Formats: sequence, C-alpha cells, structure tokens
Amino acid sequence: MKAALLQMPVTADKAENLAVAEDYICRAAEAGADLAILPEMFCCPYTNASFVQNAEAAGEGVYTAMAEAARRAGLWLVAGSMPERDDTRIYNTSFVFDPTGTCVARHRKMHLFDIDVRGGQRFFESETFTAGDSVTVFDTPFGKLGLCICFDMRFPELARCMALSGAQAIVAPAAFNMTTGPAHWELLFRQRAVDNQLFTLGVAPARDVAGPYVSYGNSLVCSPWGDVMARVGSEPALLLVDVDFSYNDQIRAQLPLLSARRTDVYQLTF
Amino acid sequence: MKAALLQMPVTADKAENLAVAEDYICRAAEAGADLAILPEMFCCPYTNASFVQNAEAAGEGVYTAMAEAARRAGLWLVAGSMPERDDTRIYNTSFVFDPTGTCVARHRKMHLFDIDVRGGQRFFESETFTAGDSVTVFDTPFGKLGLCICFDMRFPELARCMALSGAQAIVAPAAFNMTTGPAHWELLFRQRAVDNQLFTLGVAPARDVAGPYVSYGNSLVCSPWGDVMARVGSEPALLLVDVDFSYNDQIRAQLPLLSARRTDVYQLTF
Repeated sequence: MKAALLQMPVTADKAENLAVAEDYICRAAEAGADLAILPEMFCCPYTNASFVQNAEAAGEGVYTAMAEAARRAGLWLVAGSMPERDDTRIYNTSFVFDPTGTCVARHRKMHLFDIDVRGGQRFFESETFTAGDSVTVFDTPFGKLGLCICFDMRFPELARCMALSGAQAIVAPAAFNMTTGPAHWELLFRQRAVDNQLFTLGVAPARDVAGPYVSYGNSLVCSPWGDVMARVGSEPALLLVDVDFSYNDQIRAQLPLLSARRTDVYQLTF
Repeated sequence: MKAALLQMPVTADKAENLAVAEDYICRAAEAGADLAILPEMFCCPYTNASFVQNAEAAGEGVYTAMAEAARRAGLWLVAGSMPERDDTRIYNTSFVFDPTGTCVARHRKMHLFDIDVRGGQRFFESETFTAGDSVTVFDTPFGKLGLCICFDMRFPELARCMALSGAQAIVAPAAFNMTTGPAHWELLFRQRAVDNQLFTLGVAPARDVAGPYVSYGNSLVCSPWGDVMARVGSEPALLLVDVDFSYNDQIRAQLPLLSARRTDVYQLTF
C-alpha cells in the first residue's frame, strides 16, 4: 500500500483549506497513492471558538467535498478530522471515504485533549467537544486499518484494541504542539508500533508559528520494528511511503508479542 | 529515594557472582542508597543449561546471601533474578528484601522470552522455565514499587496493571541482547514511563562479549515525562539516581492520562 501523508498548511479560511486539501489529494493520486491521510482539523484553526464556528454535520460541505475528492482522485481517503455537529453536540471526527466516495468509517475522538503543562501548553478540548465511544477499525483491500485521533494515541489500551481487532496499521490524524511534540511524538508512534507489531502513521498540519495553535508537524511512518521509515519536518509536505503489511507477519513470527499476552492474568475487553 | 542500579559483571562462577553482588550492594549502601537493584540472572550465565544447573529454592544459598546482604547494608534490595526451583518447576524469580533482610515480595517472570529474530537472536526460555502468574507491586516507605522482569516490560498491559495498583516506579531487572537492545531498550523504558506517568528503572548485567549471552547493558532510569535521567554504557557500573515521586503527581496533574482512560469503552482487569 502506498500511503500519502498530507502535511498541509491550515489557515482561518475554510474554503482555502478545502482547496489546499483537494490539491494535495490530487497530487497524492498522481503520485500513485492508494491511501491519502489529512491532518487533524485540516479545515479550520485549532481553537475551541473555531471548532464551534466551523462545525458541520456529516453530509454537509466539508464532508461532501472530501467524499468527492476521494472519488475524483480514485483513492482511499482518511479525511483528517473536522468539527462534526450532531444535534446539539460537536465531535472531533475523522471520516474515511473509499475510491467511490462512499463513507466507510467514522472515528470520533475518544480521549479529549485536556492539558495544562507548567510553562507550556494549556488546552481543554472538552470545553467544546463530546467524546466518541467506539474503537474504529475498517477494511481496505490492503488490510484492516485502525483509526484514532491525536490524544487517542496516548492510551495503550486503544492501540491494543485496534491491534486485537486486526489492524495492520494505525492511522492517526494529529496535531501535537511544541511542548508535547518534541518530548513525545516520535517516541509514542514508535512504541505503539513496536508493542502492537504494526505500522503507525501520524499526520499533522504544517507548522504556522503565527497561528493560534502551533503544530509540531513531523508527520511520520513507523514500522512494526519501531524504525522511523519516513518523517518530514515542520514545513508543508506530501510524504509518500510504501508499507508492506507482510512485514508485520515477519516481525510477529520472530518476536511473538501479541500471542504471548498473558490473557489468563490480565484481560482487555472492549 | 536514592536508587542504585548495579550493572555488575556475571560469570560462570556462582560464588564469585555472589561476592561481586555483595560488594556492589555494600558500595551502594556506603553511597547512601535506599534501594539497590541487581540485574536479571545476576548469579549465573544466561543459558537454559545454566538455569537448570543453578536453580535453588527460596531459602537456600543465593536467597539467603541476598537477604543477609540487604540486612548488613541496611537497604531495600531487589535481588535481580535467579532460577528458582519449586518442586519440579523452575521460575525466573526476583526476590525483594527489606533492610531487616525479610523477603517482602517475589515476582516470577510472567512472560517468557521466546524469540527468533532472523539474522539475530534466538532464545527460548520456555524450554526451561515455568511462567509466573501474578502482577507484583510492593510497599516501601518511599512509595509503592512495581516489579517485573525483562520481557515482561514488552507488554503494556502489565505496566498498566502495576500503575493502576499504585506503583510510583517500575523496577525491571533485565538483560536485553545486542539485537533487541539497540532497537528497543531505551524506547521501551521511556514510553512505559510516559504512558503510566511513573519512573522506570532497568538494570542489566554488564556486557561480556565472550559470554554465552551478550547483554546490552545500558542500565537506565526514565522519568514520568520520558526523559532518560541517567544511563550507563556496557561496562560494569554502579549508577546512583535520586528519584522524587512527587514529580509523578506533577506530571499527572498537567497531563492527566491515567484519569482520562475511557474505562467505559475498554476495561483492563487483572
């Protein structure tokens, strides 16, 4: 599977963001990508006020534009995430479209990002968002993919649930910041890959030091052995990576972690 | 708590190993250590034949020598691990002694190290050992400590079980090799610390390139923010580190991971 990680810039102009996303998706298709992945909140700035202002229901503008972009490009699209309005609630939601433009999966961020680091970042997503309550794994012709959003990656239980559900890769639209990014971003994607013996793909917006939330960027792909296969910096970038899921099988045969779990001593249920 | 990580050399001579361990423990006490930690299989070479040959019951030679060493030194001692004979079975067991020489905890390695890396390491502990079946956390005046052995660290469920049981640090006598060490040792101890917001302490034997199993060494301490606070190389070393468990509380307050677990969606029981 050829994956395209779309580390696009995000501005305050939703129409511009959609046009940029469509351009990146088109370029990914031209480069032969099977799957394209947009970053978390690719359509609006990362602030609670912006989430409220830009929230839309499934089937409205952003959703429809991305379904159409996937269809036109003829690829699988993990449409980053957007503020999804559902009745009186707003979720941080990632929709997945297949090459016909059909929505085949939806993940609502399950762990909301509430953080208050001394001398660093302060942010409370729970002021705006309602948390989702489902583990998300979906089928593709390349293999099952797990899907979660940013802070969800912090929780080893969720990654394990996806692996036990058959995920060959965990795809995570995300937006770590300049406190947590340098400290934990690479470490986290590497160790989730090693623990669960699958690929991890993290896709962040490009860094905009003038924006209200400064993304760390550094979109990356890690192998099931924990190697960083590819990683970009802070600039806008389209990162193309070939991932071969048979490597998961090789690693799992050599170092049998998933099968060596002591389910007689501890039990993870979901 | 001042911890002493005793990265001692291990030879084929059990009496010599015990004498070296006693010397390291004595030096740790002289340096003011509250807790001393020996490496996995500090008393015999890391081979299945050696495990069988050197297996002893609790209360016999190695056990008694370590209880006495803890008492004489007046410190808490995590006595690495030894092949423990119990009736017809052999376990890879870590005994913990308090400053009176009383055994206060025992962990039997729960995940046996069976690995067959292409072009790298091949080892099957399960040819000799029976696996333990308990999560081990014990009280000290400094705080609760979790205890596991080497390959046990590979399993995020076990680290989480220890954290949920109140562990302020995870202590792991271990012996990664020259395949898994460079690839995963530091990554693993850092991410378990970050995920569970506690300290991790890994203690390995010094490297002996002429020995039957070449230990990676690199004994280390990681903070709950994922920093490597201290780390040695491959040589014999006594590493002294002050760990302040109030830092766990600070990190947990700033980045609330343990309390943000979605126990309504997934459940880890043990």
